[in-house]
Amino acid sequence: MAVMNYRGEEMRNLSVDGARLWKSLMDMAEIGATPKGGSRRLALSDSDRQGRDLFVRWCREAGCSIRVDRMGNIFARRPGKDESRPPVMMGSHLDTQPSGGKFDGVYGVLAGLEVIRTLNDHGYESDSPVELAVWTNEEGARFAPSMIGSGVFAGTYSIEKGLACADVDGTTIGEELRRIGYAGDDPCGGRPIRAFFEAHIEQGPILEAEGKTIGVVTGAQGLRWYDVTVGGMDSHAGTTPMDRRRDAMAGAARMLVAAERIGKTTPGAVTTVGMLRVVPSSRNVVPGEVFFTVDARHPDGDTLAAMDAALRGSFAEIAQQADLKLAIETVTDTAPVVFDEGCVDAVRQAAEGSGYPCRDIVSGAGHDACFINEVAPTAMIFVPCKDGISHNEIESAAPDDLTAGCNVLLRVVLTAAEW
Amino acid sequence: MAVMNYRGEEMRNLSVDGARLWKSLMDMAEIGATPKGGSRRLALSDSDRQGRDLFVRWCREAGCSIRVDRMGNIFARRPGKDESRPPVMMGSHLDTQPSGGKFDGVYGVLAGLEVIRTLNDHGYESDSPVELAVWTNEEGARFAPSMIGSGVFAGTYSIEKGLACADVDGTTIGEELRRIGYAGDDPCGGRPIRAFFEAHIEQGPILEAEGKTIGVVTGAQGLRWYDVTVGGMDSHAGTTPMDRRRDAMAGAARMLVAAERIGKTTPGAVTTVGMLRVVPSSRNVVPGEVFFTVDARHPDGDTLAAMDAALRGSFAEIAQQADLKLAIETVTDTAPVVFDEGCVDAVRQAAEGSGYPCRDIVSGAGHDACFINEVAPTAMIFVPCKDGISHNEIESAAPDDLTAGCNVLLRVVLTAAEW
Repeated sequence: MAVMNYRGEEMRNLSVDGARLWKSLMDMAEIGATPKGGSRRLALSDSDRQGRDLFVRWCREAGCSIRVDRMGNIFARRPGKDESRPPVMMGSHLDTQPSGGKFDGVYGVLAGLEVIRTLNDHGYESDSPVELAVWTNEEGARFAPSMIGSGVFAGTYSIEKGLACADVDGTTIGEELRRIGYAGDDPCGGRPIRAFFEAHIEQGPILEAEGKTIGVVTGAQGLRWYDVTVGGMDSHAGTTPMDRRRDAMAGAARMLVAAERIGKTTPGAVTTVGMLRVVPSSRNVVPGEVFFTVDARHPDGDTLAAMDAALRGSFAEIAQQADLKLAIETVTDTAPVVFDEGCVDAVRQAAEGSGYPCRDIVSGAGHDACFINEVAPTAMIFVPCKDGISHNEIESAAPDDLTAGCNVLLRVVLTAAEW
Repeated sequence: MAVMNYRGEEMRNLSVDGARLWKSLMDMAEIGATPKGGSRRLALSDSDRQGRDLFVRWCREAGCSIRVDRMGNIFARRPGKDESRPPVMMGSHLDTQPSGGKFDGVYGVLAGLEVIRTLNDHGYESDSPVELAVWTNEEGARFAPSMIGSGVFAGTYSIEKGLACADVDGTTIGEELRRIGYAGDDPCGGRPIRAFFEAHIEQGPILEAEGKTIGVVTGAQGLRWYDVTVGGMDSHAGTTPMDRRRDAMAGAARMLVAAERIGKTTPGAVTTVGMLRVVPSSRNVVPGEVFFTVDARHPDGDTLAAMDAALRGSFAEIAQQADLKLAIETVTDTAPVVFDEGCVDAVRQAAEGSGYPCRDIVSGAGHDACFINEVAPTAMIFVPCKDGISHNEIESAAPDDLTAGCNVLLRVVLTAAEW
């Protein structure tokens, strides 16, 4: 038990500099700062480049060597006593949503930097080398799919697919990496990693509501994304009797109610209709076509499959009753993620050993850690965020909670460095 | 009784040129022609300007003088024997829905043109001058409210309100009238009109279903248009538990279901949600705001008021249950319309005297005639349209029916020109 040995004693005394971590977060947030206090650093934009440059400068100042792989993933390395051992890795992402906050992703990167700075402060030598990763295009706001940098690293996507991802203007990741100077030479992935830990704000309300400081993340929900198109018949709103209509909007409304009911009646499930478009979209025309999206998530794969069946069944019944055409396309199908037991235990022990109130939690969102989990023992550390709000300029987190999560990250990294 | 005198004899013999009417309709339909055989001439767009220009050219070739008022309403005038008498007016509109048909509005305008051309063919001199009107923005598809040109003419709306109406991009009617060259100098309204007749396709299934050629329109349904804004809270689709959401889309969906139920359970009523917009419209963000429109109609004013109360009550209950903000704005409130008895009788006699199968009918749609009825004796002439379909590219009508309706228009105009 690492926590009991000499170095363990030292570990218990070792703590990060919360003020320094906070200042780094605020300094990074200045890049692409938005009016309401958030940040806009779309992947591989000029502001993303500035954020990367600042990160690289900080890491070099902390004595790290820098490597960049072909997907533009950045790795800052602090040597270990035994350089032949695979590294313990920390990290997350620096890109943001169009109207993103200061903490989503950035916290996991700069908490890792604070860990390295703390090790430097104490001249601490870890057995294994420690690396800090910045993954490319986690948000997916500019280039779909999201988490492409970690996805290629984990072998989920090919390097060709990754570099060919294009934004709405047709500009590819490969082109933008060259433009901003982050098209590295290292192969993307294919090397051993002893363990990977990602610290992140919860992006949900649970920890705050329960007064917990640390979320011990045991895995991530499965996710299915659907594109649904309902086809009816345009007709005149004033002259078409109700019983002669094929109203795509009225039918879609009943499908939305069914989707919400399935989310509410399945314990642990969430269902969301985030986009809806009406054609022709005129206030006095009975709509002939409606397109909408469904986002369905659950931590258990079988339950998610049952939700899929329930959605399809209720949509089909509604369409049949209303004489409407129905097309359902599954655009994303991500299985639930279960993190490494040893890594999860290490997080739980570090949190409890530090006296932080904690609870096990399943991530509602996708993270780079979900992909890295495929190629390395992985876990995540959640800290509360204000009102559970994320992907929003007003996203906020308490300095003490951020410090606590960073201390847990420090301790699990030191533990894993001895594995 | 005009039908019995010498000129009446002549009237019975006079008939329009159905082939010429049909060719005019097909030529106009070429402007803004859509793939499925309809037309797209949104009010005051470049294609609307082209349609207006073609109409003006045709009227000038038919010897008419052209005047344009401040709302862009166009009046083509054929002199009468006694120019001191107020004109007998025909007319409708040339603007269309985004995916409109060839006949809605256009028929009433070009049937009027065919009447004038027929009078010219026979060198017929009417006692009163005859005018043919094109009213601005009848559809309301680009600028709300609909029928704004005739509404300002009738004094229902002020000229300031009319010119200030803005589309979704904030462009106003006044700006667009100047841009396309139809901002006239004539005052809008305020002059006597002896009688107004509007020929139109039924836009509903009744005449066709009963095998009637002419609908003698006795009035029109009451109409209320609402803008509804539902306010919730943007949040992360993966991390926000169902019971902690303030999902504007889910709440709006239940309101849409309630609106349809009210339409279906109120005999003779119709309710339609034709437009709906979601903010921020991202598939993995719980929507924080939804805007939608409601169109509610009924021939009886008290019933329409009861529907208003039912809509507001159910929307408020749903908003309250889901902790959503709710704003309902009534953008149009048109009382049921009863047309002039003398004008309606003239239409009925002209139809019966011509041997056309006819029936009295209440218009399900609003028409410019509903406003003009406020300032001049008014009636309408309906002809069947295929399957009752309108506000659709596949809107269709039979040439013989269009000719019959145009003959009835000719005869009532000649009758009213002697009043």
